[in-house]
Amino acid sequence: MTDHPSQTLATFASQLRFSDIPGAVVERTVNLYVDWLGSALAGKGARPVESIARFARNAGAPGGGDAEILTDRSRATPYFAAMVNGAASHFVEQDDVHNGAVFHPAAVVFPVALALAQATGASGRDFIAAAVAGYETGIRIGEFLGRSHYKVFHTTGTAGTVAAAATAGRLLGLSPLQMLDAFGSAGTQASGLWEFLRDAADSKQLHTAMAAANGLMAAQLAADGFKGATHILEGAKGMAAGMSSDADPARLVDRLGERWATVETSFKYHAACRHTHPAADALLAVVAQHRLAPEDIGHVTAQVHQGAIDVLGAVTNPVTVHQAKFNMGTVLGLVAHYGYAGVTEFEQYFASEPIVAFRDRVEMALDDEVDRAYPARWIGKVTVTTRDGRVLSGRVDEPKGDPGNTLSRDEIATKLRRLAAFSGAASGEEASALIDEAWQIASQERVGSVFRAAQFA
Amino acid sequence: MTDHPSQTLATFASQLRFSDIPGAVVERTVNLYVDWLGSALAGKGARPVESIARFARNAGAPGGGDAEILTDRSRATPYFAAMVNGAASHFVEQDDVHNGAVFHPAAVVFPVALALAQATGASGRDFIAAAVAGYETGIRIGEFLGRSHYKVFHTTGTAGTVAAAATAGRLLGLSPLQMLDAFGSAGTQASGLWEFLRDAADSKQLHTAMAAANGLMAAQLAADGFKGATHILEGAKGMAAGMSSDADPARLVDRLGERWATVETSFKYHAACRHTHPAADALLAVVAQHRLAPEDIGHVTAQVHQGAIDVLGAVTNPVTVHQAKFNMGTVLGLVAHYGYAGVTEFEQYFASEPIVAFRDRVEMALDDEVDRAYPARWIGKVTVTTRDGRVLSGRVDEPKGDPGNTLSRDEIATKLRRLAAFSGAASGEEASALIDEAWQIASQERVGSVFRAAQFA
Repeated sequence: MTDHPSQTLATFASQLRFSDIPGAVVERTVNLYVDWLGSALAGKGARPVESIARFARNAGAPGGGDAEILTDRSRATPYFAAMVNGAASHFVEQDDVHNGAVFHPAAVVFPVALALAQATGASGRDFIAAAVAGYETGIRIGEFLGRSHYKVFHTTGTAGTVAAAATAGRLLGLSPLQMLDAFGSAGTQASGLWEFLRDAADSKQLHTAMAAANGLMAAQLAADGFKGATHILEGAKGMAAGMSSDADPARLVDRLGERWATVETSFKYHAACRHTHPAADALLAVVAQHRLAPEDIGHVTAQVHQGAIDVLGAVTNPVTVHQAKFNMGTVLGLVAHYGYAGVTEFEQYFASEPIVAFRDRVEMALDDEVDRAYPARWIGKVTVTTRDGRVLSGRVDEPKGDPGNTLSRDEIATKLRRLAAFSGAASGEEASALIDEAWQIASQERVGSVFRAAQFA
Repeated sequence: MTDHPSQTLATFASQLRFSDIPGAVVERTVNLYVDWLGSALAGKGARPVESIARFARNAGAPGGGDAEILTDRSRATPYFAAMVNGAASHFVEQDDVHNGAVFHPAAVVFPVALALAQATGASGRDFIAAAVAGYETGIRIGEFLGRSHYKVFHTTGTAGTVAAAATAGRLLGLSPLQMLDAFGSAGTQASGLWEFLRDAADSKQLHTAMAAANGLMAAQLAADGFKGATHILEGAKGMAAGMSSDADPARLVDRLGERWATVETSFKYHAACRHTHPAADALLAVVAQHRLAPEDIGHVTAQVHQGAIDVLGAVTNPVTVHQAKFNMGTVLGLVAHYGYAGVTEFEQYFASEPIVAFRDRVEMALDDEVDRAYPARWIGKVTVTTRDGRVLSGRVDEPKGDPGNTLSRDEIATKLRRLAAFSGAASGEEASALIDEAWQIASQERVGSVFRAAQFA
């Protein structure tokens, strides 16, 4: 199994059948799909997303393609639809995440699955199998690349390119050897650096857009006989050799077909960087238990893992909404004031006087227990000092949205409606209609337009 | 100058005017352009190139774009023309190389320069300035990333993406800050791993194709206001942080506008990996001086730098033409038998009995002097043991095509005609007509079709 892990993983992705996937995994995958639709719709109107959409139109996306661009309901080829929907999926930071891999699968898997399924007339069963192939592949590659990789590289861009190739390759019916070619062509294009973060630059949209598009391209090339490196993941001059110092090849093939990493994926409840969620939920627990008003709180220490300090530490004085989503003080201020750090709360209040004042009363500290548990578990711990001198501790073992604390279908639907209303991508009636349709995707004969039902709403 | 080298380099690329460029640099750039045309034409019919061209057509390249695909004379948008011409440029391994940077500038710079100049109606002067901006940028980034980078990463793919962005940005008239955005969006997409080499996979065509296309995309996005990381090259989570352990930021801004790295670029004479050329020319010197026939030669030791062993060492028993171009024994066998290792010699003879037998009489050995001089100078040294027991040494200080031993315009034209005939991309008359036209590019009012004159030939 492990002497050629790239091949073992590619074979699994190529041969995964719907009937191999347990019912609970299928159900969760449908939930992840509907959750993703909300995130993709939420990207409508965002400057970097619209910029990539304009690029796609100018580069040659013909209006008459078979795949849907969700933000404007136009049609394009699968390549450009995957690119634009990939750009849209991650903008409001509400798409799903696999904690152990620190990887956002939906943003790179579903744009490809939807575009190719629409273009090829695939069944809902094949759509689900392709999505699961992408999740299982990308999560294991993220785990394989390890913490050293994530320090500099945006895993959703790098591992995401191969995940997208796995999804596309499954829908194109690639053989195991062709899938290995697709992995090779995807892995050699894997990219995405965190450097953009401290500038509040737009690169994150580019990373998800191009992971989706390049992965799809890699699979289409493989179907055409284009050869890729056969050891792109673990080889001496492959991804890990170039971009990791603690890679573990055994993670690539960890209990394939037995362990379903897909269902380990967390929904994001707050619209912020996932590294802030455990502390946010821990603070909410303290606030609820002790009935604290924001003005009761004198100081908060968020006890975090090193990765949170690495990613969040760079932003101390956020000047954009996007930066604010990477600022622990802002997130804790929003939850203390509004009980939720959603897209609307960020847009309206991140720079307001009370939130800015609260922000300056928050600090992060490395916590041994939290750090040791990470990335397998994202424990939240805070210590709150009240203005009247009490020292209160809060703790959550699984932040809201994690597998043991997952969202219900009602919560997912509510989140989608909020996101669609936020961006204006769908009216309330349209959102309800497309949600009702989307829950049925696994039983559809052919995956059609997301807006098929919504157009009559 | 050096406290923000990404900005200094981006400003240089943005503001470079034709009138700033010395006449000798302009003349050499024209020679590099004509040399590149030959390499791009040579890619016609190559399986991986045709595969990428099919992908481009399916992904949405409309037949009616303004930029020319050189291999089939069709039209496309600049994005897809740059992609396909980039794929074609490097296939026969005859395109130019900058020794110090171990970077092939033409393959990623000219596809972008030509496509955008054709689409925007740019003048020949702007075309030349944009090409020089790309060369100066990409070469300095290659030098900056250093030898550690090249051990795992294909510098032409990585540095090449930013070089392509510089070229595109100059033709789009980006401001210095916009150019910095383009660098950010290009650098965060920089990719290309050497892992494909031992499989004889097709990734090299993908690397040059996507460096050109992604760099062009980055510049078009920047023109539209898309923000990039401002320290993508030297930042704590930028290219060097992720992909190099010996980066030297001072190299990025080394004598900008005074040192013209463009004219340090070497033409490739033999159709093999550049790492074989010094030894090939040294062997030719021994053969000429001592009038040796191939059968006189009992054993050859090629005394090389470590980088040659790293890149060439993986291939011991080449089974494809491409692998043969990375095999020192094959290259030395061809020059011993035919005096030249060109595309035709490889195609016809790489697996022939005399060449295979010669190959097994060749070994590489690390040489201190050669290794210390590298990559600034590529010294060639061989020791030949003849069948009658003589031990003969050969040496070249600059292989043919290097700046001190450059090709004449006649030699460049002959090389282009050979390459076009090899692939069938142009008849002898067509090649002569397009060469005559191409020498005039710097004085053209508008850069038009490469085949404008050839169609009447």
